[in-house]
Amino acid sequence: MTTTDTEKSLRLAAWAQNTAPSPMQDMLALTARPGLISFGLGLPNQELFPREAFAEASSSVLLNKPHTLQYGPAGVMHTLKASIAELMKGRGVSCTEEEIFLTTGAQQAINMLARLLLEPGGQVVTEEITYPGFLQVLEPFAPELLTVPTCPQTGMDVDAVEALLQAGKRPAFIYSITDGHNPLGSSMSREKREKLARLAREYGVPVVEDDPYGFLSYADVSLPPLKALESEWVFYAGSFSKILAPGVRIGWLIVPAALTQKLSVVKESYDINTANWSQHSVAHYMESGKLTGHLELLRREYSARRDTMLQAIASYFPAETRAEKPSNGMFLWAELPEWVDVPQLLRDAVEQKKVAFFPGQAFDTPGNTKGKHGMRLNFSNATHEQIETGIKGIGELIEAQRAALGQS
Amino acid sequence: MTTTDTEKSLRLAAWAQNTAPSPMQDMLALTARPGLISFGLGLPNQELFPREAFAEASSSVLLNKPHTLQYGPAGVMHTLKASIAELMKGRGVSCTEEEIFLTTGAQQAINMLARLLLEPGGQVVTEEITYPGFLQVLEPFAPELLTVPTCPQTGMDVDAVEALLQAGKRPAFIYSITDGHNPLGSSMSREKREKLARLAREYGVPVVEDDPYGFLSYADVSLPPLKALESEWVFYAGSFSKILAPGVRIGWLIVPAALTQKLSVVKESYDINTANWSQHSVAHYMESGKLTGHLELLRREYSARRDTMLQAIASYFPAETRAEKPSNGMFLWAELPEWVDVPQLLRDAVEQKKVAFFPGQAFDTPGNTKGKHGMRLNFSNATHEQIETGIKGIGELIEAQRAALGQS
Repeated sequence: MTTTDTEKSLRLAAWAQNTAPSPMQDMLALTARPGLISFGLGLPNQELFPREAFAEASSSVLLNKPHTLQYGPAGVMHTLKASIAELMKGRGVSCTEEEIFLTTGAQQAINMLARLLLEPGGQVVTEEITYPGFLQVLEPFAPELLTVPTCPQTGMDVDAVEALLQAGKRPAFIYSITDGHNPLGSSMSREKREKLARLAREYGVPVVEDDPYGFLSYADVSLPPLKALESEWVFYAGSFSKILAPGVRIGWLIVPAALTQKLSVVKESYDINTANWSQHSVAHYMESGKLTGHLELLRREYSARRDTMLQAIASYFPAETRAEKPSNGMFLWAELPEWVDVPQLLRDAVEQKKVAFFPGQAFDTPGNTKGKHGMRLNFSNATHEQIETGIKGIGELIEAQRAALGQS
Repeated sequence: MTTTDTEKSLRLAAWAQNTAPSPMQDMLALTARPGLISFGLGLPNQELFPREAFAEASSSVLLNKPHTLQYGPAGVMHTLKASIAELMKGRGVSCTEEEIFLTTGAQQAINMLARLLLEPGGQVVTEEITYPGFLQVLEPFAPELLTVPTCPQTGMDVDAVEALLQAGKRPAFIYSITDGHNPLGSSMSREKREKLARLAREYGVPVVEDDPYGFLSYADVSLPPLKALESEWVFYAGSFSKILAPGVRIGWLIVPAALTQKLSVVKESYDINTANWSQHSVAHYMESGKLTGHLELLRREYSARRDTMLQAIASYFPAETRAEKPSNGMFLWAELPEWVDVPQLLRDAVEQKKVAFFPGQAFDTPGNTKGKHGMRLNFSNATHEQIETGIKGIGELIEAQRAALGQS
């Protein structure tokens, strides 16, 4: 034997050695405390899940279709794809079933696209404040992030994207959360949508449009997704997590048909295929026609909660606070005065007021500090009463910080 | 504008540019033909799925537990982990809930471990004939495969593994399908299990034990998995796909507790978490105590089909055919005489006899041709009558090849 007496320790891949638990995980642990009002996570309201209709759909497919519990081909299920194509038509996107690829949620959709498009050390365009789950996807690639500014009203700075492309940059892709931005709540202006779609086409650089919130629109007139403006160079990721339920884990990609063959290889290597059972249950639910009414319910309920939260912020937060009214999604971004210590505010809020939110710095891309004075507030999960109580409590803690600092 | 007039085409990551559809995908397309008898894919028998009990479990959790459709923490669900720990105890593995990490099936479990353990270009020990879904996992890493011989009776050549380690190789991990090997059907001998567990410990090199078939044991006395022999350096991947249903997509890892924190970061970046709904439904089914009886049913039904297939092979295949009797799983490997053209046999079988199997070469690791004269036959999916008909048909085609070659 040539073994040594030195202690052996497990060797991890380099990228994994310093990987820390994500802020989302910390928040999940935090919000598990009983009685806590959570504006922290991006949770849909579980009281609104269509549980009975879904139980009916699930039982029906289980009892009538034995293959519901069998394996199926990766990314493919005819009836669900047909329903998704119909759903997308309502947003101005026309696509064939061959362009749709089914996934286990939008997170997997984005992950799989990154796997196909990105080389280790490659370049990606992202906003200075963005969804941390996307940065987690990128981590093993150690990419070069080309960050552009973003505006709480009109979204990503598309002129800055153009400048990068004009300077010769050819990133693997541009990442965009066009509607109901996580965490900013912003939706991109029409002019920016048109320009970004044009840039993708003209430079041959794909835009990955991450759109879990596009169907949760509270505006009288909602704008078309990028995918509706440019069919070839925009790769669209959709999800049933926010419009039906996250627990079913079904999402989809709309991409050029040639790419779905590559995606099926990645999908097989990841998890063989999405649960046939979930796919069939969602398809059955979609065919019942009940999603339309359910979306109307969600829009009504969530926009009312958003308004309650905005009103509470106006009542209890310092007058200098900037909070935009989001036209989509489930997040509201509040920009607090610079003298507020946001991480301390979170600790005090959890301990003293039993309320949680997400500190803005958790959404900064590496090297940026734009989120430092911000907070992301989820308005879909809590009741109106909880929103009133929670925002009031946070407001009192901000006033306490002001008093301690001697601010006037 | 600095755009050019040259045609723009999508750039894929280097590894993805030449990725071809997998043989599994071709087989799935092939077996979709109506009326085809399939020994090709690793399908459990869908007539045996406990659909009514499962529909009851699913409805019960949906109607009684609103959070069933909500997000949940990555890799964690208390009651399901408790049931899995109990299940593993029956195989001689004692583990805590902290060592269990829930995944979307064993494929994802293996993929996530590779992501954590393997560097691009790193080394992995594998058998010369192995599960292609594992090679798909490795593809983006372009690893150096250290292949060792494998025996249809006693499994992986563990002496060859020792020789690699003695020569100074320190692979990221050793990949082992200890029971009911896919595609060979072999189960590792007791002596080899003990030695491989010892090597892992002594050299500090993890063994990834991929065990979808260990619970489908047809022997009077089944051997313990490697994990029962070495708790720290064996990482165990289990699955409900073959013992309950693949359509639920639930699997698990048993690893040192420190690793589960890293796994949760990977899991979040992959797909946030496994469907809460599936997890709760499986947990509810497990708590009903019905899995024990279901496993007995599967063992009885599958071993009877295995025996029917072996009998048919003895009756209809050339006398020189070598076919081992597997003690676990759902595959039987037949080694045909060298004069048989196996790929041609498959084409003829599909066209003339409406029966499919998997040609052995699909399981060769790159550079090996040991599988050239073999065929993998799945015996769990077909009826006894289909097995008789299908094997007889293939036998006739082999005889036709013999006649055409003038073999005696």
